[in-house]
Amino acid sequence: MDKAQQVFERLDELGKITEEPSRLTRQYGSEAMRRANDLVGSWMKQAGMQIHVDAIGNLIGTLKSSSSSNPKTLLLGSHLDTVKNAGKYDGPLGVVLAIAAVEELKLKQLPFNVTILGFADEEGVRFQSTYLGSRAIAGAFDEKDMQRADADGVKLAEAIKNFGGDPAKLSTCRIDPKNLLGYIEVHIEQGPVLEQRNLSVGVVTAIAGQTRAKIKFEGHAGHAGTTPMTMRQDALAGAAEFIQKVEACGKSTTGLVATVGQITCDPNVSNVIPAVATLSLDVRHQEDAIREQSVATLRQSASQISNSRNLKSSWQTVQETNSVPCDPKLSEVLRQSALKHQTEAIGLPSGAGHDAAVMGKICPMSMLFVRCKAGLSHHPDESITVEDTRVALSVLTDFMTLIASRSDA
Amino acid sequence: MDKAQQVFERLDELGKITEEPSRLTRQYGSEAMRRANDLVGSWMKQAGMQIHVDAIGNLIGTLKSSSSSNPKTLLLGSHLDTVKNAGKYDGPLGVVLAIAAVEELKLKQLPFNVTILGFADEEGVRFQSTYLGSRAIAGAFDEKDMQRADADGVKLAEAIKNFGGDPAKLSTCRIDPKNLLGYIEVHIEQGPVLEQRNLSVGVVTAIAGQTRAKIKFEGHAGHAGTTPMTMRQDALAGAAEFIQKVEACGKSTTGLVATVGQITCDPNVSNVIPAVATLSLDVRHQEDAIREQSVATLRQSASQISNSRNLKSSWQTVQETNSVPCDPKLSEVLRQSALKHQTEAIGLPSGAGHDAAVMGKICPMSMLFVRCKAGLSHHPDESITVEDTRVALSVLTDFMTLIASRSDA
Repeated sequence: MDKAQQVFERLDELGKITEEPSRLTRQYGSEAMRRANDLVGSWMKQAGMQIHVDAIGNLIGTLKSSSSSNPKTLLLGSHLDTVKNAGKYDGPLGVVLAIAAVEELKLKQLPFNVTILGFADEEGVRFQSTYLGSRAIAGAFDEKDMQRADADGVKLAEAIKNFGGDPAKLSTCRIDPKNLLGYIEVHIEQGPVLEQRNLSVGVVTAIAGQTRAKIKFEGHAGHAGTTPMTMRQDALAGAAEFIQKVEACGKSTTGLVATVGQITCDPNVSNVIPAVATLSLDVRHQEDAIREQSVATLRQSASQISNSRNLKSSWQTVQETNSVPCDPKLSEVLRQSALKHQTEAIGLPSGAGHDAAVMGKICPMSMLFVRCKAGLSHHPDESITVEDTRVALSVLTDFMTLIASRSDA
Repeated sequence: MDKAQQVFERLDELGKITEEPSRLTRQYGSEAMRRANDLVGSWMKQAGMQIHVDAIGNLIGTLKSSSSSNPKTLLLGSHLDTVKNAGKYDGPLGVVLAIAAVEELKLKQLPFNVTILGFADEEGVRFQSTYLGSRAIAGAFDEKDMQRADADGVKLAEAIKNFGGDPAKLSTCRIDPKNLLGYIEVHIEQGPVLEQRNLSVGVVTAIAGQTRAKIKFEGHAGHAGTTPMTMRQDALAGAAEFIQKVEACGKSTTGLVATVGQITCDPNVSNVIPAVATLSLDVRHQEDAIREQSVATLRQSASQISNSRNLKSSWQTVQETNSVPCDPKLSEVLRQSALKHQTEAIGLPSGAGHDAAVMGKICPMSMLFVRCKAGLSHHPDESITVEDTRVALSVLTDFMTLIASRSDA
């Protein structure tokens, strides 16, 4: 069977493994995750790989080099868990495609080992965590996370045990950073850029840094019918001015995305002037300095708006994550590989987080994005084409072949 | 005792009559309303008035003219029901002050009858209705309202019966429009204008007309990290632009108040571009043409905003009420009376609705506003001073004396 078609059908089959009837949900440590590991593990074996599940539940397949006595290792992978009511491609694509690439190349004498990582937890839905799987592998696991409890009160340590792992032995998950060639993750774009540019794949330049903040404007409630416009302290009007500034800042700064996704208003009654408006802010850019400058500008805007309107405002930074740049050399090899299959190979930042950001702590990493319909992810309508899957597979095998030809491989 | 001080203390006493422990709530047809009618009725009797409670529960006190064989009637009043967790003055002030005025003047030979109306339902909290009391008196009661049910499923007709009234005889509540001199309502301003102008009272020019609408902007959800600014259809950003237009329209149009008090956003998640934003709009002006023009302009703005942003928008008019102008002659007499007690007598529109708007259907009407602290109403902190109460009482008695001296009284 055509390999791309096979990847496509395997993703369909894997997408049926769910813990919820009639929709795809596969959380860390669930029975569905076990079945997913079993199925994907069987494909790894068919590809000639040795498999094991590590102490936290990551599925790991290894193909030893047949031509080198002291080989380095190339890591490929993505995650096998999903959000609730998920699509079939976010995560699994990177694992199943890597297996197909290994199968395609196994008769060639690769001068490096290939290890495919099927991470057990990237979405973090069950424990509201991030990257449990890749952090264990990168030696970046935070022991405090063991105390996290799921909605039923089951702690992570217990969930690891129930899944057959060993919370006391997470250090054994760690992959030695020595002799790693790098980590490559193929992932759906989760955005609309490739579709708009009519390209099957794109090379990721960096996983963008992110600032999340909560901004509150406080004014004074008043009767909407009896308080003249000049005597108002309307918190929502101030918030609206700020939302406009956020959008303008995003539009005027190349590569920046700036979003107010959440708003609450109090008392939120049609005939009362709003007393309090609270907003979320999400700012991302692949260059930390640009993001930080933009956030500082917006913070100043919030102050100016509240001063000029006689409001009080507060700013709470909720999260601040630095950008993780992709390795320029690996990205360049991906770009060369992509150029064999499409006329153009654009670089684009990843606005979403990925296991690659964690893996970047222990080795060079890069990512290949695959076009997805309407940029949709985290939704059952998530969709890619067989044709794009074929291009992505060819790019990955060409990439591996080019790496094999390098003197340092 | 000083009459103004007495009014003040009576309002304190009346404010203790509540259906809820530890806060003031007096809804239509409640046991608390009965006790309020009893107490206020006793004060009417002390003032020499005859009292009765009509078929819907309005408390009515009458003082017959002692000097005329075919007297006309001056109506004074306001409402005795309250919102939940109310202040003591919104409504009761106009009734208790009128009783004091009658008491003050009863030894003078007034050439007209005085009828004080204590309306049973203005706030409409229990049945989400408006002006049940005054509409019954003005012959403007809507029989469909009988089917309204309160939170416990009790229908209005049943509530009228339980209160001792007769839903089949509401037509008997009607006051004959013939021979009415007019209706005067004294009420707290519920706004900050008098306080800012340092005036005890002001004369109402009109009860403003009002347009209420619900505006929905629909765009497209998207990942806040991966969707470039140029490819967004952000419903909240569109809504924010509209909120700015609403505020600007209010500020640039003399006498207009325009408010977005309510906003909902969907999915309202910090890392998702908003797909839908829904706003309330409340526009009021004492001149209908100006309000209508402003609403038309804002409606056009909503369309332009949604067109330019590739959003869909919808506009649902929720309510449209025309302005009810106060009678210029009555207002002029109030103004002359006010000028005896303060240096200036400003006219100001009422942005809030009042029973006076309904009474205006059957006779000339005007209103006197009394300064209230911080413009606050519908709140336990609602506050007026004894001094302002004294001015209001003097203005009302002077007004009645001036009316008595007119040839047509």
